[in-house]
Amino acid sequence: MNDIQEMPNWLKNRAFLTPNRIALKTEDLSMTFKELHEKAFLLAKKLSCAGVKKQDHVAVLMNNSVEMVFFIHALKYIGAVTVLINTRLSKHELSYQLSDSNSVFLLTENTFLPLIQNLSTKVLLREEVPLLEDGVFSLQENFSLNETDTIMYTSGTTGAPKGVLQTYGNHWWSAIGSALNMGLYEEDCWLAAVPFFHISGLSILNRSVIYGMPVFVHYGFNPIKANEAIKYHGVTIMSVVSAMLTKMIQELDKDKYPSTFRCMLLGGGPAPLPLLEECLERSIPVYQTYGMTETASQIVTLSPEYSMKKIGSAGKPLFPAQLKIEKDGELLSPYEEGEIVVKGPNVMKGYYQRNVETEKEFKDGWFYTGDIGFVDEEGFLFVLDRRSDLIVSGGENVYPAEIESILLSHPKVKDAGVTGLQDATWGQVPAAFIVSGQDLSEDEIIDFCKEKLAKYKVPRSIYFVSELPRNASNKLLRRKLIDLL
Amino acid sequence: MNDIQEMPNWLKNRAFLTPNRIALKTEDLSMTFKELHEKAFLLAKKLSCAGVKKQDHVAVLMNNSVEMVFFIHALKYIGAVTVLINTRLSKHELSYQLSDSNSVFLLTENTFLPLIQNLSTKVLLREEVPLLEDGVFSLQENFSLNETDTIMYTSGTTGAPKGVLQTYGNHWWSAIGSALNMGLYEEDCWLAAVPFFHISGLSILNRSVIYGMPVFVHYGFNPIKANEAIKYHGVTIMSVVSAMLTKMIQELDKDKYPSTFRCMLLGGGPAPLPLLEECLERSIPVYQTYGMTETASQIVTLSPEYSMKKIGSAGKPLFPAQLKIEKDGELLSPYEEGEIVVKGPNVMKGYYQRNVETEKEFKDGWFYTGDIGFVDEEGFLFVLDRRSDLIVSGGENVYPAEIESILLSHPKVKDAGVTGLQDATWGQVPAAFIVSGQDLSEDEIIDFCKEKLAKYKVPRSIYFVSELPRNASNKLLRRKLIDLL
Repeated sequence: MNDIQEMPNWLKNRAFLTPNRIALKTEDLSMTFKELHEKAFLLAKKLSCAGVKKQDHVAVLMNNSVEMVFFIHALKYIGAVTVLINTRLSKHELSYQLSDSNSVFLLTENTFLPLIQNLSTKVLLREEVPLLEDGVFSLQENFSLNETDTIMYTSGTTGAPKGVLQTYGNHWWSAIGSALNMGLYEEDCWLAAVPFFHISGLSILNRSVIYGMPVFVHYGFNPIKANEAIKYHGVTIMSVVSAMLTKMIQELDKDKYPSTFRCMLLGGGPAPLPLLEECLERSIPVYQTYGMTETASQIVTLSPEYSMKKIGSAGKPLFPAQLKIEKDGELLSPYEEGEIVVKGPNVMKGYYQRNVETEKEFKDGWFYTGDIGFVDEEGFLFVLDRRSDLIVSGGENVYPAEIESILLSHPKVKDAGVTGLQDATWGQVPAAFIVSGQDLSEDEIIDFCKEKLAKYKVPRSIYFVSELPRNASNKLLRRKLIDLL
Repeated sequence: MNDIQEMPNWLKNRAFLTPNRIALKTEDLSMTFKELHEKAFLLAKKLSCAGVKKQDHVAVLMNNSVEMVFFIHALKYIGAVTVLINTRLSKHELSYQLSDSNSVFLLTENTFLPLIQNLSTKVLLREEVPLLEDGVFSLQENFSLNETDTIMYTSGTTGAPKGVLQTYGNHWWSAIGSALNMGLYEEDCWLAAVPFFHISGLSILNRSVIYGMPVFVHYGFNPIKANEAIKYHGVTIMSVVSAMLTKMIQELDKDKYPSTFRCMLLGGGPAPLPLLEECLERSIPVYQTYGMTETASQIVTLSPEYSMKKIGSAGKPLFPAQLKIEKDGELLSPYEEGEIVVKGPNVMKGYYQRNVETEKEFKDGWFYTGDIGFVDEEGFLFVLDRRSDLIVSGGENVYPAEIESILLSHPKVKDAGVTGLQDATWGQVPAAFIVSGQDLSEDEIIDFCKEKLAKYKVPRSIYFVSELPRNASNKLLRRKLIDLL
């Protein structure tokens, strides 16, 4: 009788249990859970008037704002599945994701009007939804933990982005695993300067309602404003990638964070050593993490007390999760390099309508990440290569295979390979190696890519070569591309 | 693929993740999770040598000690089900519980030798187990959340104590619900001066391995030592009942607790107003709770900020739990009195081998507590009567029906009713009303009870009456017994 298949609607329950606690803060406003509930409830009525129904897939294309938070909760109130769209996608990519996810509505805002011309999906503008009549809907009093809450797109070796099915249970356990690892303090306040369309940002919103903790919402990342939020507005935890943290520390100059600031949660790849040393000197507690869209945020985390002793490590699994290193189906010993395999209730249900890919990546409940790494004798994980030569540029995942498939669609491109080059600002940027033999300029390729790809995926440099490195079975050896320079 | 049916063995996982954190403390020793794991692992080998196997029911009759903690974990390592026995039981009650629970072993200690003479269950002494050879067993690497971890006995309207099946999932969710409510601080240390055979004590051990938090173990309750633990040994949280807290405050005199002490978790019935006022004056943060063996510890809790504003309330449900008030199958409105009905993943699976009783107390996953109360317009619970006129004496539950059935088994007793009388030290003590008409003395009855009942259940006073108050359907009206005085 204690099967946990459903639990009370998080925001509604939170508004009942601690109505007067602060849910959202910005420099200008402060809103309680009761007020947030009322906003979400009202918008749910408006959305139902627009025709949004339980189990509908509704794509959300918005920049961070408190309004975006209202809509995210409103969709859960109706029981719709939220498809979170990266705001930097090209029109080509947007169309693909809307169609692949079977989204019946696109909920967006005026600033994206140029991008959304002539889409076949029905558009709802956040500026106009509040003007609609009140519709009637049945509020989801309970969340089923096995049901899909959100879908986020991610690519892989195949190049075609796939929709990751994140359940209510995935988000719940992610929040619980994080709390067991980092603790839960009465005065906690989490700064969200990472996008809500990423799992790093969305997970902050889930923690907020589950913990009863305020989120300080930034409408974009600004290192000066981020430092101010920590110094003057009571922020105790912040999610960052290395590029953000580097800029914040430059801006901070000789200043310090208050001692109440207790966690800089650093995701998106290993941190450069000088950055860690700088943080140690300034007593900034950095928690390095390893996670992905498929694990609904962090699954492995390195606590600050180990950040120097275990340099380069991503840490140990969160309490409810597990980790192993495998090669050719064999469990490896410490220090042997192999594929990182994880298990836990925060691991996704699968990819939307892609049973073959899903089954390929799971075995006995274990998820094969495609990332390469090893553990040391104490069980600390070291990540060597992100899956399929993943490029992490300013915290965004860039998949070489996806860019290559665009490049290969150009009539004058015979062969193409993409890899990441080191970059002082972004960590890595994509570079393309092209085999053409025809009259083809660098600008022509870049213009072609700009039409089809989000800006951060467009190669920063193009190298024309006569041949690409391939192995015996003709598989592209992306890591050898760099040798062609 | 994210069904959470099992998770890594708590102590083993904790010893892997944070081996050097402190797990157990006393005035004399301090032991890490790694050391605790090694102790439990070694004892599991010894216990298997003695014949203990996975799924065996093993009764544990011990006073609080670090050794008791080792054994509790050792049994989980083997996968045995632990039956926790109240150390104050009479031999008669002990035999009943051993037999009813189908315990194949009784794990106890020398001090209980007089009590355990001539038992049919095989006895293992904790002083002797370490001298056994190492046996071979397969360590439970994972805990199945739906499997029974522990059994604790509780009575009810029927009088016969029933075994409450507490699963791993019940204990897990209880720990998580508590953390979401009270927070989780790096420096937390929980004082266990309540018995581990009660859910109030056992739940501290579970929180310890799940949170990675030290437990300060007291071998019994001593108000002076408890105050010292808070003042000098870093204790930040303590579980108490009113009688304990009252004594501690008397002993504290003009002294104060350090500001790092953050939670006095007060269970076992509502707190007397003067006690709450005293705590407020001394800045002792009291969390009042409502819970029972069947809910694996707290299910409703009142935070300190409401302790005066909502005097007499038990608070609101923990985040994963729910609460409603019903009468004759109808949901009641605020302030209407009815039965307290709860739901949540911390609610027991049922009673051991008592499907009829179990089904009677559950409906659509909701557990009918038998307790009477109401909620106010904000949803705060007020408990009016514990189920079946439960008497709470010094934190121990005393069930009138159980005492009555013993009294009625006396050849000279025609009818018997038991109720609680107010008592300055114990909160309540049981008093018996006897219809006899024969030559029967108070002492004779008390001696008879002492043979069959734990001391705290033996009536403190006996009243001979000509008739008991009963309703039309002849049901004993226990609350009217007091009018006979």
